[in-house]
Amino acid sequence: MLKTSPLAPEHFPEVHQVAGLSLTALRSEERYKGRNDVLIALMAEGTRSAAVFTQSLAPGAPVIWSRKVYAQNKARAMIVTAGNANVCTGKKGLANTQVMAQATASLAGLTPEQVFVSSTGVIGEQLNIECILNSLPEQLNADNEQQDWFAAASAILTTDTYAKAASISLELAGETVVISGIAKGSGMIEPNMATMLSYIFTDATIETQALQHMLKSAVDKSFNCITVDSDTSTSDTCLLFATGQAGKLVSDIQSTEGRVFYAALEALMTDLAQQVVRDGEGAQKFITVKVSGADSDQSANIIAKSIANSPLVKTAIAGEDANWGRIVMAVGKAGQEINFEALRVSIGDVLIAEGDGPVEGYDESLVQAHIEGQEVNIDVDVGLGKAGFATIWTCDLTHGYIDINADYRS
Amino acid sequence: MLKTSPLAPEHFPEVHQVAGLSLTALRSEERYKGRNDVLIALMAEGTRSAAVFTQSLAPGAPVIWSRKVYAQNKARAMIVTAGNANVCTGKKGLANTQVMAQATASLAGLTPEQVFVSSTGVIGEQLNIECILNSLPEQLNADNEQQDWFAAASAILTTDTYAKAASISLELAGETVVISGIAKGSGMIEPNMATMLSYIFTDATIETQALQHMLKSAVDKSFNCITVDSDTSTSDTCLLFATGQAGKLVSDIQSTEGRVFYAALEALMTDLAQQVVRDGEGAQKFITVKVSGADSDQSANIIAKSIANSPLVKTAIAGEDANWGRIVMAVGKAGQEINFEALRVSIGDVLIAEGDGPVEGYDESLVQAHIEGQEVNIDVDVGLGKAGFATIWTCDLTHGYIDINADYRS
Repeated sequence: MLKTSPLAPEHFPEVHQVAGLSLTALRSEERYKGRNDVLIALMAEGTRSAAVFTQSLAPGAPVIWSRKVYAQNKARAMIVTAGNANVCTGKKGLANTQVMAQATASLAGLTPEQVFVSSTGVIGEQLNIECILNSLPEQLNADNEQQDWFAAASAILTTDTYAKAASISLELAGETVVISGIAKGSGMIEPNMATMLSYIFTDATIETQALQHMLKSAVDKSFNCITVDSDTSTSDTCLLFATGQAGKLVSDIQSTEGRVFYAALEALMTDLAQQVVRDGEGAQKFITVKVSGADSDQSANIIAKSIANSPLVKTAIAGEDANWGRIVMAVGKAGQEINFEALRVSIGDVLIAEGDGPVEGYDESLVQAHIEGQEVNIDVDVGLGKAGFATIWTCDLTHGYIDINADYRS
Repeated sequence: MLKTSPLAPEHFPEVHQVAGLSLTALRSEERYKGRNDVLIALMAEGTRSAAVFTQSLAPGAPVIWSRKVYAQNKARAMIVTAGNANVCTGKKGLANTQVMAQATASLAGLTPEQVFVSSTGVIGEQLNIECILNSLPEQLNADNEQQDWFAAASAILTTDTYAKAASISLELAGETVVISGIAKGSGMIEPNMATMLSYIFTDATIETQALQHMLKSAVDKSFNCITVDSDTSTSDTCLLFATGQAGKLVSDIQSTEGRVFYAALEALMTDLAQQVVRDGEGAQKFITVKVSGADSDQSANIIAKSIANSPLVKTAIAGEDANWGRIVMAVGKAGQEINFEALRVSIGDVLIAEGDGPVEGYDESLVQAHIEGQEVNIDVDVGLGKAGFATIWTCDLTHGYIDINADYRS
C-alpha cells in the first residue's frame, strides 16, 4: 500500500455493531498478495435495501448484475472483490459475476438473485475466478454477527491509503438505532449518482421506498459533491441495507423519525465522501469550494465543479500559490450565467476580488498563510443575487497523482 | 524559458513574407526580463480582418476591447503583450488596454479603434503600463514591410518552450498568394472558439464576410480540436488579416478560389494548433484521438474530448501503460449515446476491444511498442453505425505539468 495520505484521519473510527449483519473478509490473492481482498456481508431475513449505481454508459458486469438484484428487491447478501473491476469483460465477465453470486448464495442458503456483487480495480481484464472461489469457506452463518469493521473496510481498498468508515448512533422514537458504513475510493473520482464503492448498514426498520428515497437524496448531498480527478468510475455503487432489527417501522420520510434518520444518514455519508477526497490520489490539501449567488443550485454545482476540476486551480493550490486568477478562469469557462461585474472571490475568508478586479488594499499575505495549511476554502459569489448554492469537496493535483497513475496497472 | 518540448519541430519553419505587413518585436521588461515581450503588426490600407474570441464568460480587457475593434471593421494594426493577461483588472485594466491602442495608433497615424490589443500571461494583476509605453519607438512605418517572423513568434510566448509559425504559398486564379501565421499556447488550453493567441496574415484579397466565415470554419477544425488540460483561457484570440496586396477579390467561399484558399487556411491553422499541443505543458507524447460511429459530429467531439481530457488516460500514456480500460471509462462518462456491445477500441491501429470485451488473442506487445513512441493514436468506434466523427489532438499528463503550474506565478 502507498504511504498514508497526510490528510488521513488520525485513527480508524469506532464503529457501532449493526444487529442482523455478519461481515467476513477473505484473502483470494487474485491480484493483491498478502492482504484481504474479498468482503462478504450477510444480512438477516427482512432486510430492506436501497442502491444507487454509476450513470456511466459503460458499466461493469457487477453493476449490470446488481441492478437486477436491486430490481428483485429481496437481497440478503453482497460480495465485494478488490483488484480487478470486471469491466469491459463481455459475456465471460458477466458469467463470472453470476458465479460469484451463486457461490456466495450457496454459503448461506440463499439464491443468487439475493446477492449484490461489486468489484473494483483494473478495467478490461478477466477475473481469475478460481482464486476467488477457492478463498470462500464451506459455509457462513449470518447469525454469528461477526463484524470486524477495520478488516471489512480494508478488504475493499485498491489505491486507497487508508480504510474508511463512519458510524452514528441515534434515538428514533425512544429506541436506539445505529448506522455504520464503509467506503473506498481514491482515483477515478467524480461520482455521478454514487461513488466508487460504499456500503452502509443500519439496524433501523425503514420501509423500502423511503430507504431508496433517502439514499438518493443523501448521495446527491455527499458522494455527488466530491471530485478528485473528474473521471467517473464504471463501477460506482452505493448500497444501503436496513436489517430491521431495531426501532419501529419508518415509512414516511417527512415524519420526525424519517427526518432524524435522514439527517444522520446524510451526515454519515458526507463523512465517508470527505474521507474519499482526503485519500484522493496524491492529495496534500483538502479543498472546499462554495459557490453562491447563482441562478440555481444546479448552476452553482456546475461552476463549483469547474473550479474543483480545473488542473490549473489544483496545481496552483498544490504549489501554495494564491493564483486566484485561475479561479476566475474556471468560473468563466463553466458556461453558466454570471454577473462578472459583481463577481466576488475569497480564499480563506479573505475577499480578494470584487466586481471584475482585485479589491483595494488586498493583502495577499493573509491568503498565503491560509493556503499553506492543509484545508483550503474557496468561496465564489457569481453576483446574480440569486439563491443558487453548491459545495464541492476536492483535493489538489500533485506529483503523487502522476506517480500513482502512470504506474498503476503495470 | 523552460527546456524545449521533446515534441517540438526540428527547426523554426521558413515563413513567406506577406505583402502589406510590418512586424516589430520590442522589449518592455514588464514581467519577463531580457527577452522581447511586445509585438506590433501594422497592415496596409484596405486590409480586411476576421476575428474569433474566447467564449469565456470572464473575458479579459483586451478581448472586450478587441471585440469593439472588430465590430468597427477598419483595423489596421495590433499590439500583443506577453507576461500579464490583463484579465480581472476592472476599469483600470480596460483603461490600460485603451492606452495601448492609443499609443500604437499614434505611432502609425491611425485611430485607437483601428488597433486590436491582446495580452497573455498571469490573471488578476494590473499591468505596468509605463514599461510597455516606454518600449515603443517614436514612430513606425507600415510600408517598410519588415518581417522577422522568429522574433515576432517569440515575443508573444509565455510558458511555451518554442516559437510557433506556419506558412503556405498557393496559386489562386493564376496568381501567387501566401498565408503566414504565428501562435502561442502551452497551458490553459481547451480553446472554445479560438485558441490562446494566433495571428494569421495573408496578402490575398478576400471579402470581409467570406474571410470571417473561413476563419470561423477553420477554427472549428483546428484550434477547437485541441486540448492540453481542459482549461479555457480568458484571453483566447485568433485574428486573420488579408492585406489585399495580391490576387483578385475572392468573395464567394464556394468558388474554386474560395475553396482553394480555405483548404490552405485550414491546413495552416491545423499545423499551428498541433504545434500548441506539441508544446503542451510537460508534454512528452502527442496523442490523436479519433471517434467514429457516433450519433453526430458533435457527439463524437464530446466523446473524443472526454478521452483527451481524462487525467487517467493521459497519465497512463505518460507511463507508457496500454491501460485501455481507462479509454472505455472516459467513453462511458461522456454522457453520449453509444452501443456498448459494438464498441471498438484500437491503439496504434491494433484492435484491442470489440463488443464489450477484449478481442480473442489480443497481443499487447504491439500496442506496447506503439505507446512507447512519441505519437500515440487512439481510435474508438462507438458502435452506433452512424457517421458522427471527430478528431481531437492532445498530449500526455506528466510531472512537468505539475512543476510548471505549481510554480508558474511565483
